[in-house]
Amino acid sequence: MKLARCSHNEGEPFWAIVDIQQDEVTPIVGPFSEWAPAIAQGKGVSALRLLGRPAPLSQVRLLPPIEPVNRVVVAGANYTKHLAEDFGLSAPVQPVAFLKAYGALIGAHDPIRFPPLTEKLDHEVELVAVIGSSEIDLADPLGCVLGYTVGNDVSARDLQLSGPPGIGMDLFAAKSQDKTTGLGPWIVTKDEFPAGSPALRLTLKVNGETRQDSSTSEMTWHVGELISFVQQRSSFACGDVLFTGSPAGVGMGTGVYLNPGDVVEATVEGIGTLRNVVGEKPSV
Amino acid sequence: MKLARCSHNEGEPFWAIVDIQQDEVTPIVGPFSEWAPAIAQGKGVSALRLLGRPAPLSQVRLLPPIEPVNRVVVAGANYTKHLAEDFGLSAPVQPVAFLKAYGALIGAHDPIRFPPLTEKLDHEVELVAVIGSSEIDLADPLGCVLGYTVGNDVSARDLQLSGPPGIGMDLFAAKSQDKTTGLGPWIVTKDEFPAGSPALRLTLKVNGETRQDSSTSEMTWHVGELISFVQQRSSFACGDVLFTGSPAGVGMGTGVYLNPGDVVEATVEGIGTLRNVVGEKPSV
Repeated sequence: MKLARCSHNEGEPFWAIVDIQQDEVTPIVGPFSEWAPAIAQGKGVSALRLLGRPAPLSQVRLLPPIEPVNRVVVAGANYTKHLAEDFGLSAPVQPVAFLKAYGALIGAHDPIRFPPLTEKLDHEVELVAVIGSSEIDLADPLGCVLGYTVGNDVSARDLQLSGPPGIGMDLFAAKSQDKTTGLGPWIVTKDEFPAGSPALRLTLKVNGETRQDSSTSEMTWHVGELISFVQQRSSFACGDVLFTGSPAGVGMGTGVYLNPGDVVEATVEGIGTLRNVVGEKPSV
Repeated sequence: MKLARCSHNEGEPFWAIVDIQQDEVTPIVGPFSEWAPAIAQGKGVSALRLLGRPAPLSQVRLLPPIEPVNRVVVAGANYTKHLAEDFGLSAPVQPVAFLKAYGALIGAHDPIRFPPLTEKLDHEVELVAVIGSSEIDLADPLGCVLGYTVGNDVSARDLQLSGPPGIGMDLFAAKSQDKTTGLGPWIVTKDEFPAGSPALRLTLKVNGETRQDSSTSEMTWHVGELISFVQQRSSFACGDVLFTGSPAGVGMGTGVYLNPGDVVEATVEGIGTLRNVVGEKPSV
């Protein structure tokens, strides 16, 4: 089942089931926090109340599948090759997590804003877990997962490295820039994947050229381990999302960064593709 | 004018004007985002619609003065002596900012939860600016400020230093632990202070013993500079709060950390005092 957060004619956002074959979105009745826990528990479509009248998928705007009150948590340093090749760092002994501003998010087809302060805008395709319950069981951390979506954790690398010595990378400046981070196009519920942490190919193309191509099976810490790590430091709520890190191949390693007009396509197998075009660089 | 977010008999949170002399809180009609910009512009109490019936201040619970949809932004490294004496770091060339989870917040008289993962729980009294408009003018960054409140950015120092080498401090693990960060007791509107960045004494006592005693005039970057710094990296919205850094005297420097039962009083002159008691350390 695909769950999307949409708007129609710039109206109020609503959650819907997506039927790609029929080109339809069918609105779901009630707030996310009421129905998501049942879906996370595997109750299926019968747990949802649906509005009778679907809208054409092609006529809605796909918004980031997260409510403004929820948190965007990013777990980094989760692909050894990305750390080694792109940052020259060895594998850490534990993950690291941080928060991304909600205002950084864009939908699956929105433009990527080019932040004025950066000269080194970079991409990071990631598998993103969507938390579907506020009850997290550390003995079964995947039990709280509603499903998975695709993220492109667009990063301003020069700002990332502008943090004070001794304190570290400025991940806020790098990764919370307004309207830069693609999230979507929808949530695919976890019942569509084998049990356990997903093993899915993830790729990122710029103007059709492949820049990142790996598998989530290459993660150092799998999704359940990341959920447990974060939960012990700061509790998840139903509707929060967790970015799970990006594999090698980013501009930080190759020196090839994003430019205005670039078409950026981030794909996770079995979920979908974000297609975002980089906007003009403003004159400061 | 003092503005508080309160609840009465565990009911829905509401915003109110506080009258300490009369021991009264008078509820304000309408959402924060509707009336706060007028107050930030200096329109005064006449811009508010008030409910006729005040409640006794002593009978309401003072909540953190921020809505769950808003961001808690923390600017660190803003007092040279704190950096030098407590962390052995030299003054950076620019501030650093990060996001704190909303779930970390507690009100002015709530207990500080003792997070199970830490052995080194520490205090940080801070002046906190409350943003009262979503229109930020970089030429007049203090124009968007509604007022000021008091923060105690309680930090798990062992977790703070557990971040991966090359990436830096784990500020999420250190500073987003559930129910640890005091915020309140209320917002004092900026018209009660001289124009410009406030020069206010800030102190922190543990069991009556002074641990931090400094002035916000010792900040490396004043409040307007911090707002501009953050705004250029990730936009503020009306209702967001900005922690402005803590002066020297914390446990990180002295080796004296917080213990269960400690009474922690964080005060900023002209605003008020947070009085929070440290809870029991859970057995893991």
